[in-house]
Amino acid sequence: MKDSSSLEDIVSLCKRRGFIYQGSEVYGGLSGTWDYGPLGVQLKRNIMNLWWKKFVDERDDMYGVDAAILMNQKVWQASGHVDTFTDPLVECSECKGRFRADKLDDPNRCPTCGSESKFGEAKQFNMMFKTSVGPVADEGSVSYLRPETAQGIFTNYKNIVDSFYPDLPFGIAQIGKAFRNEISPRDFVFRSREFEQMEIEYFVHPDTWEQHFEHWLDQCKKFFEEIGLPAERIHELEVPENDRAHYSKRTVDFEFDYPIGREELMGLAYRTDFDLGNIQRASGKSMEYRIKGSNETVLPHVIEPSFGVERAIMAVLVSAYREDEQNGEKRVYLALPEHLAPAKYAVSPLLKNKPELVEKARKVYKDLSKKYPGRVMWDDNGNIGKRYRRQDEIGTPYCVVIDFDSLEDDSVTVRDRDTTEQKRIKITDLTDDLRFGEASI
Amino acid sequence: MKDSSSLEDIVSLCKRRGFIYQGSEVYGGLSGTWDYGPLGVQLKRNIMNLWWKKFVDERDDMYGVDAAILMNQKVWQASGHVDTFTDPLVECSECKGRFRADKLDDPNRCPTCGSESKFGEAKQFNMMFKTSVGPVADEGSVSYLRPETAQGIFTNYKNIVDSFYPDLPFGIAQIGKAFRNEISPRDFVFRSREFEQMEIEYFVHPDTWEQHFEHWLDQCKKFFEEIGLPAERIHELEVPENDRAHYSKRTVDFEFDYPIGREELMGLAYRTDFDLGNIQRASGKSMEYRIKGSNETVLPHVIEPSFGVERAIMAVLVSAYREDEQNGEKRVYLALPEHLAPAKYAVSPLLKNKPELVEKARKVYKDLSKKYPGRVMWDDNGNIGKRYRRQDEIGTPYCVVIDFDSLEDDSVTVRDRDTTEQKRIKITDLTDDLRFGEASI
Repeated sequence: MKDSSSLEDIVSLCKRRGFIYQGSEVYGGLSGTWDYGPLGVQLKRNIMNLWWKKFVDERDDMYGVDAAILMNQKVWQASGHVDTFTDPLVECSECKGRFRADKLDDPNRCPTCGSESKFGEAKQFNMMFKTSVGPVADEGSVSYLRPETAQGIFTNYKNIVDSFYPDLPFGIAQIGKAFRNEISPRDFVFRSREFEQMEIEYFVHPDTWEQHFEHWLDQCKKFFEEIGLPAERIHELEVPENDRAHYSKRTVDFEFDYPIGREELMGLAYRTDFDLGNIQRASGKSMEYRIKGSNETVLPHVIEPSFGVERAIMAVLVSAYREDEQNGEKRVYLALPEHLAPAKYAVSPLLKNKPELVEKARKVYKDLSKKYPGRVMWDDNGNIGKRYRRQDEIGTPYCVVIDFDSLEDDSVTVRDRDTTEQKRIKITDLTDDLRFGEASI
Repeated sequence: MKDSSSLEDIVSLCKRRGFIYQGSEVYGGLSGTWDYGPLGVQLKRNIMNLWWKKFVDERDDMYGVDAAILMNQKVWQASGHVDTFTDPLVECSECKGRFRADKLDDPNRCPTCGSESKFGEAKQFNMMFKTSVGPVADEGSVSYLRPETAQGIFTNYKNIVDSFYPDLPFGIAQIGKAFRNEISPRDFVFRSREFEQMEIEYFVHPDTWEQHFEHWLDQCKKFFEEIGLPAERIHELEVPENDRAHYSKRTVDFEFDYPIGREELMGLAYRTDFDLGNIQRASGKSMEYRIKGSNETVLPHVIEPSFGVERAIMAVLVSAYREDEQNGEKRVYLALPEHLAPAKYAVSPLLKNKPELVEKARKVYKDLSKKYPGRVMWDDNGNIGKRYRRQDEIGTPYCVVIDFDSLEDDSVTVRDRDTTEQKRIKITDLTDDLRFGEASI
């Protein structure tokens, strides 16, 4: 049994089964972009909706926003992105290929043309995608695709305080796209040019940041557990002072053992009042918060837990990927947590050319779908063995098969994805979680 | 009683109460962009999730995708957008202001500087936002922010057929952002530069398009009903041949009576095999579908129901907006359908300085929240009258108030948003839909 996967295993399964395709694939692709297929969308929605439920719906102190991707250029001047959101870029003197200087395997040899190259001094390449807004293209019309969702939150801080005047501490949460013009996108969805972030800026009284930082450390770990990431693959890295942003007094990076090595999964940063201070200076508007029942005002400090959806999806897939042997043949399956799996049930008639089986199976499919809309798959393609393999690969926890006995005893065979064990279950028990739970494998 | 609203009524309520703010407002805004505040996000999510549930989760023939916003430029060459996705642009010879030629009130007078202007010939202004992908900015690196989500579906058609081989007819559905560099964005979120689409491309055998068109006409109308749009404000416009795209044999625009006049709400178009044919030619890859159990292949034809989320939200708000008089004072409320309202319940202690009332109210709040996560609001700000006004304005159907009697009889006052009637309800009946339904006003 193999319980670790190569990157190729994951990429190949994702394409074959309809999780994730190369972006613009039919036209030869566009590097660094990825399209979610039907199962990938479902997995992504399950993760994003779980995050929203845990961190927005189930909390009293959280306010959701959904800010525009295109923002006034002053946002990125004040945040420092226009000046400093750069990667070092070098060009091969022979083939004119361009590369990220700090990622070159050999500083004297071009990875494209192989020649001994004079790369020369690295230039600072700004990673924001630039565009122009409005009918006149000039300096005033310059805009960028946001390289992070965070600034969409900070720029709405004052709106939220004005509309709701929440108690301090409170958080503002957002799920949305962000864009970075990576010099060399790589490692599947891990480093892409377009991605989705789930971010919270949590505003606290400056005196209390340490306790809230601890709270969010704990919340992050709970979320990892909920999406099925094994604790032993996650590593909590206290970022040392030298490596932190100059304004941050504490940053923890959670790293994960991906097939590409140990890399960042998400980050938790104490950003002090850096962002609100910048906005206050650049906009001339006060970002002070008046403590309720007092005349004291403070510029709140910020704790930022920042998740990338793609990195979470990749960690989830990597954690779920398994190979074993069944009847002498290799089997691949995704041991996804039930609440994340694109389908919870697959329903099949044993034979698709027997109308009485199909009719009965359709009835079961319909009843289950009513209880779990969008989480039940009809599968009558190929023989039962093939269907099991397909459902294993997409991580469906239960395959329900209607056979000739079902016509007599109103029972079905339910096969468990992980153990491949099969049990007979009464149809009426299928939609009854508790009874199914008791009876289940 | 006033049951129609001006655009200003809606815009002002949206800003005041935290539904929708001007994008980048703290920096003076960015024209044509809007940010959703906490209540707007909830309303938007309720509409988008309802659409996904109805059209993806509850259907057997629908496949979801989520394609990248940045696509290979060949997509937009093949689709015709590079050449023809334009609006006519004129420039004032005096102040150099630029305007959409077909929207000028007076073709000889500049709307900005007021001078008698020589606008001259209109130029064709392409409405796609242009950017450059990768470290070398040249012709090959040009890309665009997608001006519609549809092409993200068509380019994945072959992926879906290869991964799933669905029966014909089948649909591919997507919710996502699209961008258009409008010359003059206007009318609140109605014509903005960044917006969200909910689109389906439904692939059918060419011989059957008429019956499927009828099916989708019907489905669209059902959806309008589900989001609470009154039938009398919706107008079905058969687009005459001269106004249709050259390839379309039938297009129906659903128009809505907005405060800005009768304007498009959504469109249903029969697109024939125009898009798949384009992709086939431009990519050199066959888009033919082999009919199951036969050797016949067809290039499927397409029915496209295309919803804009912002136009739906605007129609929902306009339909829900009411003014009446209560105790001699003007009252504003949003009669939103219960399943769309950002909050279903607001819970209040009658007095916030009575710990026993607060404690009891907190318990009710917690129990209700467990049943309706994210749909219960705690509100103890100001006196009861003020709370009712606030909850009326954001469309909360039920205000639950815990008073001194509640401590004795475990009942609460439940006030109905639309009628303002109040009833005593047992706390245990609150979380019981059926019993609450019976007892409710």
